[in-house]
Amino acid sequence: MLRIALAQVNPTVGDLEGNADLVVEWTRRAANAGARLVVFPEMMITGYPVEDLALRASFVDASIATVRATAQRLAAEGLGGIAVVTGYLGRRAGLAPRVGLPSGAPLDAAALLYDGAIQVTSAKHHLPNYGVFDEFRYFVPGDRLPVFRMQADGGRVDVAVAICEDLWQDGGPVQVTCTAGAALLAVPNASPYERGKLYVRQQLSARRAREAGAALAYANMFGGQDELVFDGGSLVVDATGRTVAHAPQFCEQLLVTDLDLPAADPAQLPGDTPVDGGDGTVITIRRVELDNPGRTERHPVGPLPPVRATWAAKCLEGPPGGLAEVYAAVVLGTADYVRKNGFGSVILGLSGGIDSALTATIAADAIGPDRVHVVLMPSLYSSGHSVSDAEDLAKRQGLHARTVPIRAMVDAFNSELDGLTGLAAENLQSRIRGVILMTLSNQEGHLVLTTGNKSEIATGYSTLYGDSAGGFAPIKDVPKSLVWELARWRNAQAAQDGQTPPIPENSVSKPPSAELAPGQLDTDSLPDYAVLDALLDDYVEKDMGAAALIAAGHDPQLVQRVIRLVDAAEFKRRQYPPGPKITQKNFGRDRRLPITNRWREQIG
Amino acid sequence: MLRIALAQVNPTVGDLEGNADLVVEWTRRAANAGARLVVFPEMMITGYPVEDLALRASFVDASIATVRATAQRLAAEGLGGIAVVTGYLGRRAGLAPRVGLPSGAPLDAAALLYDGAIQVTSAKHHLPNYGVFDEFRYFVPGDRLPVFRMQADGGRVDVAVAICEDLWQDGGPVQVTCTAGAALLAVPNASPYERGKLYVRQQLSARRAREAGAALAYANMFGGQDELVFDGGSLVVDATGRTVAHAPQFCEQLLVTDLDLPAADPAQLPGDTPVDGGDGTVITIRRVELDNPGRTERHPVGPLPPVRATWAAKCLEGPPGGLAEVYAAVVLGTADYVRKNGFGSVILGLSGGIDSALTATIAADAIGPDRVHVVLMPSLYSSGHSVSDAEDLAKRQGLHARTVPIRAMVDAFNSELDGLTGLAAENLQSRIRGVILMTLSNQEGHLVLTTGNKSEIATGYSTLYGDSAGGFAPIKDVPKSLVWELARWRNAQAAQDGQTPPIPENSVSKPPSAELAPGQLDTDSLPDYAVLDALLDDYVEKDMGAAALIAAGHDPQLVQRVIRLVDAAEFKRRQYPPGPKITQKNFGRDRRLPITNRWREQIG
Repeated sequence: MLRIALAQVNPTVGDLEGNADLVVEWTRRAANAGARLVVFPEMMITGYPVEDLALRASFVDASIATVRATAQRLAAEGLGGIAVVTGYLGRRAGLAPRVGLPSGAPLDAAALLYDGAIQVTSAKHHLPNYGVFDEFRYFVPGDRLPVFRMQADGGRVDVAVAICEDLWQDGGPVQVTCTAGAALLAVPNASPYERGKLYVRQQLSARRAREAGAALAYANMFGGQDELVFDGGSLVVDATGRTVAHAPQFCEQLLVTDLDLPAADPAQLPGDTPVDGGDGTVITIRRVELDNPGRTERHPVGPLPPVRATWAAKCLEGPPGGLAEVYAAVVLGTADYVRKNGFGSVILGLSGGIDSALTATIAADAIGPDRVHVVLMPSLYSSGHSVSDAEDLAKRQGLHARTVPIRAMVDAFNSELDGLTGLAAENLQSRIRGVILMTLSNQEGHLVLTTGNKSEIATGYSTLYGDSAGGFAPIKDVPKSLVWELARWRNAQAAQDGQTPPIPENSVSKPPSAELAPGQLDTDSLPDYAVLDALLDDYVEKDMGAAALIAAGHDPQLVQRVIRLVDAAEFKRRQYPPGPKITQKNFGRDRRLPITNRWREQIG
Repeated sequence: MLRIALAQVNPTVGDLEGNADLVVEWTRRAANAGARLVVFPEMMITGYPVEDLALRASFVDASIATVRATAQRLAAEGLGGIAVVTGYLGRRAGLAPRVGLPSGAPLDAAALLYDGAIQVTSAKHHLPNYGVFDEFRYFVPGDRLPVFRMQADGGRVDVAVAICEDLWQDGGPVQVTCTAGAALLAVPNASPYERGKLYVRQQLSARRAREAGAALAYANMFGGQDELVFDGGSLVVDATGRTVAHAPQFCEQLLVTDLDLPAADPAQLPGDTPVDGGDGTVITIRRVELDNPGRTERHPVGPLPPVRATWAAKCLEGPPGGLAEVYAAVVLGTADYVRKNGFGSVILGLSGGIDSALTATIAADAIGPDRVHVVLMPSLYSSGHSVSDAEDLAKRQGLHARTVPIRAMVDAFNSELDGLTGLAAENLQSRIRGVILMTLSNQEGHLVLTTGNKSEIATGYSTLYGDSAGGFAPIKDVPKSLVWELARWRNAQAAQDGQTPPIPENSVSKPPSAELAPGQLDTDSLPDYAVLDALLDDYVEKDMGAAALIAAGHDPQLVQRVIRLVDAAEFKRRQYPPGPKITQKNFGRDRRLPITNRWREQIG
């Protein structure tokens, strides 16, 4: 029997010292829980993704020095006898193997720390270069499978290491784990959240465990990094693919579990063996032996500690893919952007509508209502309920609210710029609000939150430097239909818990309006959101062309109109702040289109 | 003797029909000039880069259909007897070979059109995935070298085809051209401009021609596409590496030249021969024969037409890397962004300072002064010379000028937002100017030009949604020191031509100031620009760490301060509009760093 721990922790990109502290602290917790092996996430030492920092020599040097120092520090603190697998940014010596890489090519690496030293290193073999990933830009592929022999209760066992994408693609480390006959495959991950992805990861882990003929320990990162959210959900499956332990999503967690593993074959001795990777590559199995097999066991193993969320309030054990999951993702993405960028508070405009109401609620759940400042900025065209609904929300949640009417500013611009009409007059109001929020941000130090949703951003139904102004956009990847669902869900949760629903019913139920012209409604310019979102999902996320969209049953005229809106809004999206990715394809790293683009999908 | 033509033309991304028209039109010009072979740029049919459009099935289908139709159209218009090599977006049949690619993987392809049909196709073998390039995201590598036999004066010759990056990396198509014994290597390119790159391309072409043992025809694209500028500068070298013809930069051009080429070996028959690519790959030489060798020659060859720029005013034949080259690049980038995005005019704020003065001059040179609108927006802190220098510039160049004082707007904000001080009060003025420009843009339909330079953008010395507002930023990649150089150069050019220097001397010579507070100068917040730019060049473009910067002689305190400024401004850069790349590493596609980033370079 081997007791293992998966450390589902939240590193910060670039904070090498803080991340190393986490490794030491959580190794201590693992040791205290009686674990002999602890697995940390991918790129734990540097955070993930580091983007072009991977190409800077000083940063790679610092990562390597930090992982070495961490091994020593663990031993110095009496933790040298626990096997620690951690991700870091490494380097392969020698000349640059590819144009654009520095000499000494960067590696998405993993190290085994034990007895005060790095015992063996490896690197991710399969490099993802699609969606949000650009790993061919940064890394060369690993070609080694480390297999280390360590003491378990009642014998010694062999443990192999693979990294994240190595599970998602065929051949390579999983297949070689089978060849090597390892009993356990430890997998550090930094797998970004998408709605429902937890289930996909579980299925994948089960399949790969069966292929490898080994138990599989999937340790995922937790935390937000710019537009990515790492949701945790670490899990352990046995060699038959059965889930034997799983951690909740969206919280830090030490997942400790006991595995009955087959004993290592004593005939297999330490050393290197090149084998067929099954994907056209050769992979070298590097076997290492930890300790002298006769050495006394260091950690007496007691009963398993209970699974416990250390950030319990945000911890999620719900059905995968549900609204609770999406809500937790946007809350975590927002909380970590605020915290990791050193802000103490946020500010946003509150219109009385559903988008800003939900954004304020997310912010309050992320960092606490006392750090959320809202500004009501009524204009000539604001309805009475705009102000009263916004006031109601601020009161329900205990937010800092103030009112700054924009009429005097509108008048000042109109007195200098004659005869403003149409879009110019509408956008002016929105931009004055943007200036007010940015000015208060500069004066008081708040981060400005942007309240736009994915349907708006897709169609360009927003004002550049107006409602699109800000540093972070919590619902940027949330289609409008889902905005309503999340708002209703959040209210229902509160009611269930005997609390006041945070969002006024009127903000949820009234027809959406930008209120930039008298009696204006979103439906004046856009189709019904249910119809629109179905079409946007097929065009934006599924990348279907016009013929395919029409074949799928969308109205041809609407297809033509909406495609045109989406294509023409690319310049606005380029200047939009980041926001947490929750769908398969977000606007940002997932979808990259030229601004200058005369391609028009052919209709009929 | 073979007369060839290189069509240095300006396609537009996504405008398949317009790009195909260019192929037909310029093939006719080539035929009229007596050429038997014409070479178009890389991805001519689609424009370049198409980014994620490469992943959309309908777009790939349309590209392939267009290149087929173009072959037929050429024949129908009596041009079937000229060999046309053109780039397009192609597809390799079969299942997706890599995660993220559609089934039927996209190819950066080239086709040989002749006699109404596509005779042979190939694809780029070396895919660039560094700097501004992301081709591993989009394409699979080509593994074929087409060699076509065609009629020349006095015999038949063999011509091979490679694409752009195939020249920049060792092994592959260049080596196989030598193996195949081809007499000429035709190379379609979309090679983006960087200062001095023309010289690098010439040296490279010469070296590769010698390696291939063949003459080399380098046809480069011309035109702007978002942040990239394609500068043309097409050239032909003989098999010894000597340049036998070259086109100017920054203009469309039909470069026609006569080459004495060795006759094809009649023993080599049409068919496929796999050979060693010299880079670990196997490349198949596909030999095809155009025409029946006995068929009568179609094009009588007369004397060579003179080299002639068809857009003479902008055409550049200067020393590579000089100020004229940089200036032409920013003018072209600006002109094409305006034109290809369908704008008729631009608008920008004129402060009397050097940045807006140069930007206005670039705009006037790009699209004509009568389409350039400038707005003087004086505040309480604007000096007298701000207004007079700006007025002087508008008068010298004949721009549409108006004045919109911002005092009333500043007062209106101050009356609603009490006690604004420091940065909040300074940025407010800048943001009011941003709103004025955007409002006039909405009202009158102009594209807003942003006037920030690279030194400002690097250090964050700008106001988000203030002076950074706009759709295109002509001097975004121009360091401040170079801004002055370009202004002086442009004035000197005018003086040389007997014209009024476009930029008032006072705008060039006065100390730079944002004029957002009384008596403010840039040097209050920033070091001298010469010192700053040298440091930025090493940190941003060369990616040197702190230790390396100090070792290179930069002041340690300044290193610490400037690195901090650059790192902290990442969030502003993400929301900055695009502007033409002129350096080795621009802010945009070239340099990609996380916003959330706690890495601090270690000083000492």
